[in-house]
Amino acid sequence: MVSTKSQVATISIECNSDDKCSLASANGTRTSSLSSSDSVLNLSLGDPMMFEPFWKKMSDKYNVTIGGGDLMSYFSDGNNVCWFLEPELGAAIRRLHGVVGNAVTDDRYIVVGTGSSQLFQALLYAFTTPGGPEPVSVVSSAPYYSAYAEVVGFLRSELYKWEGDAYKFNKKGAYIEVVNSPNNPDGTLREAVVMNRTGNGNGKLIYDFAYYWPQFTAITGAADYDNMLFTISKCTGHAGSRIGWALVKDKDIAKKMTEYITISSIGVSKESQFRAAKIIEVVCNGSQKVGSVKSENFFEYGRKILSERWEKLRETIQNSEYLILSKYPQEHCLFSGKLAETLSAYAWLESKDDTKDCNEFLRGLKIVGKSGKICGAHQKFARVNLMCREEEFNQFIERLSATKGKGVINGNWSLKC
Amino acid sequence: MVSTKSQVATISIECNSDDKCSLASANGTRTSSLSSSDSVLNLSLGDPMMFEPFWKKMSDKYNVTIGGGDLMSYFSDGNNVCWFLEPELGAAIRRLHGVVGNAVTDDRYIVVGTGSSQLFQALLYAFTTPGGPEPVSVVSSAPYYSAYAEVVGFLRSELYKWEGDAYKFNKKGAYIEVVNSPNNPDGTLREAVVMNRTGNGNGKLIYDFAYYWPQFTAITGAADYDNMLFTISKCTGHAGSRIGWALVKDKDIAKKMTEYITISSIGVSKESQFRAAKIIEVVCNGSQKVGSVKSENFFEYGRKILSERWEKLRETIQNSEYLILSKYPQEHCLFSGKLAETLSAYAWLESKDDTKDCNEFLRGLKIVGKSGKICGAHQKFARVNLMCREEEFNQFIERLSATKGKGVINGNWSLKC
Repeated sequence: MVSTKSQVATISIECNSDDKCSLASANGTRTSSLSSSDSVLNLSLGDPMMFEPFWKKMSDKYNVTIGGGDLMSYFSDGNNVCWFLEPELGAAIRRLHGVVGNAVTDDRYIVVGTGSSQLFQALLYAFTTPGGPEPVSVVSSAPYYSAYAEVVGFLRSELYKWEGDAYKFNKKGAYIEVVNSPNNPDGTLREAVVMNRTGNGNGKLIYDFAYYWPQFTAITGAADYDNMLFTISKCTGHAGSRIGWALVKDKDIAKKMTEYITISSIGVSKESQFRAAKIIEVVCNGSQKVGSVKSENFFEYGRKILSERWEKLRETIQNSEYLILSKYPQEHCLFSGKLAETLSAYAWLESKDDTKDCNEFLRGLKIVGKSGKICGAHQKFARVNLMCREEEFNQFIERLSATKGKGVINGNWSLKC
Repeated sequence: MVSTKSQVATISIECNSDDKCSLASANGTRTSSLSSSDSVLNLSLGDPMMFEPFWKKMSDKYNVTIGGGDLMSYFSDGNNVCWFLEPELGAAIRRLHGVVGNAVTDDRYIVVGTGSSQLFQALLYAFTTPGGPEPVSVVSSAPYYSAYAEVVGFLRSELYKWEGDAYKFNKKGAYIEVVNSPNNPDGTLREAVVMNRTGNGNGKLIYDFAYYWPQFTAITGAADYDNMLFTISKCTGHAGSRIGWALVKDKDIAKKMTEYITISSIGVSKESQFRAAKIIEVVCNGSQKVGSVKSENFFEYGRKILSERWEKLRETIQNSEYLILSKYPQEHCLFSGKLAETLSAYAWLESKDDTKDCNEFLRGLKIVGKSGKICGAHQKFARVNLMCREEEFNQFIERLSATKGKGVINGNWSLKC
């Protein structure tokens, strides 16, 4: 076990300097250990380690073996628009959406990416053309996933430009709106807003469905949009594989996305694709109770853990003098056939006192969250990863509980712990 | 076996329309088959399939098995600047350079990338700062790897700009020069040129050593530059893994590269890294004649095949009425202890008649090469991949041989076949 000490020191410095505790400044260890309650608890990122025990339990049944001479070529299928997509992964993705019922795959092209981050960039590239009068505006309703802003802005492209909150966007002309539902960081269900608000019909829409899986929310129908993004990181918890996929209606968009990924990384890891196909197959078999490996329903497993965590968290916050949490709706889930509440992957904590910085409060407890400010929201909010390992979650609850009747000296917080 | 027919049709259309037979417009199949001498033979890309038989021969001895619960986290090693580098891969890379003797790894940070393409972009990002008076110029001596131009230009970044041939670059101020040695496409050994030519000392240098391995050229010393790029695609032939690495002297550069890869793809496939570590281990053991698996020396194998191919090609071209090839130098190789000629991964074919388009000539033989024009050179040159499968290479030679005393109707070629 590797100590988290130096890892956490780095994060702490980054966070204190400018409150930009972004992914880019993050560190971690392969197996983090909380040696004492003095350790800094990093819950700023969305590492989905809560799913690991499911996969570890029967790890050898779900394994993949790759021979030395396998998967050597750049190419997977020259007859496919996305020539670097392994056919087995394409088939597994179509089956998965069929089993879960969360998205339409008929008449859709599948483009695979190095995570959905790369596919988001591929869509920006596909939606824009060099030589326009000005960069195309990219927006998303606040609070938004902070990486959208980073990804759009970091290369200072003349093709597109980050314009922040979709609720404040009033420009005419072309724009791209990202709709993330359930939304990271706040877990709300979302729809596009710019067209309805402003009547601007020149928008292209990207639906980021990273969290539209049964462990996180009710599946209320098969999404049928033109451009939809998914990632295995949040679907099954295999974040290290860096596999995302897009379901794309228009062939020319799929072609241009493929072009983007060709130029930026000449395709996507074949090993990860091969393994993702196997993992998805296991998830489908478990959901349908078929296949040679008798396994639990993965989504039920995920939902059970998240449900217990949310219950513990709400109990804790209920007694808090400093923090509050919103409620989420319940809806009928077509996948489980039951009423299902949204169980967000993140706690979106809010300070009771509007003048207080929520992330500062967490820092006083040696918890690293993500400030609402970098998600386009008020600093009274902070995001905390609830998909962490069990011992991390327990520490989180323990530290929050310890604040009752005590105080924290930190920034503008007058209390002490 | 999948027919190459539709694959080739796509490429053919792309190439005929604007002579930009770039990687972005390329297709392929997992296993290409040449059903007849009428099939189009696509040798435009650098797919290194000539190495496949080496790995297939003892494929099961070189395999890797990954359990369902392995490698799930985004993180590999929080104590490393490159937090997503698997420690086993880092160790394997250092061992490999020690065994081959082609690069210094002491006092170097290793940054892993989704192929060396992503690392090239990470270096551009690391070398530039937003808000400069104008984009930093990026140059390379012509003929250059055409992907440099594509990668630098495709997002219209305000940080950097492609300025083409380093021999024609005369601007003052900051610039970045890429030195590729042995050079893709022409196999020449290269050094930086701008500083010596113009005295401009404001340059940053990127050494792309994709082909500085014993199968391609004599290892004349351990390269000791500040920023060096390598890729497993050309080192061992595992192009599908998308694994590249940078050896970087300056910690701040390594940090900024890591930041780039974090924003663009949140790290690099763990499965590919895990497998690459194993493959590199096998190559090292074979070179040192150690380890439990008795294997050939991979580099000797690669050199033997390439040597035979070059011999056949030179014999064929020697009798050609239309084409010529340059000679390469022989040097003492510290790895093999023998005199070793450069055996370029590509044939850089030149039309005897300066007015003739070499790629047009190849097209007449239903061979798809890459035009010299998109490499910043004259259209009398064309690049052909010699790392292709054996049956493809044999077809290539057969078609070239068939032109003797015959003619080809194509473009401005007056001959007929």
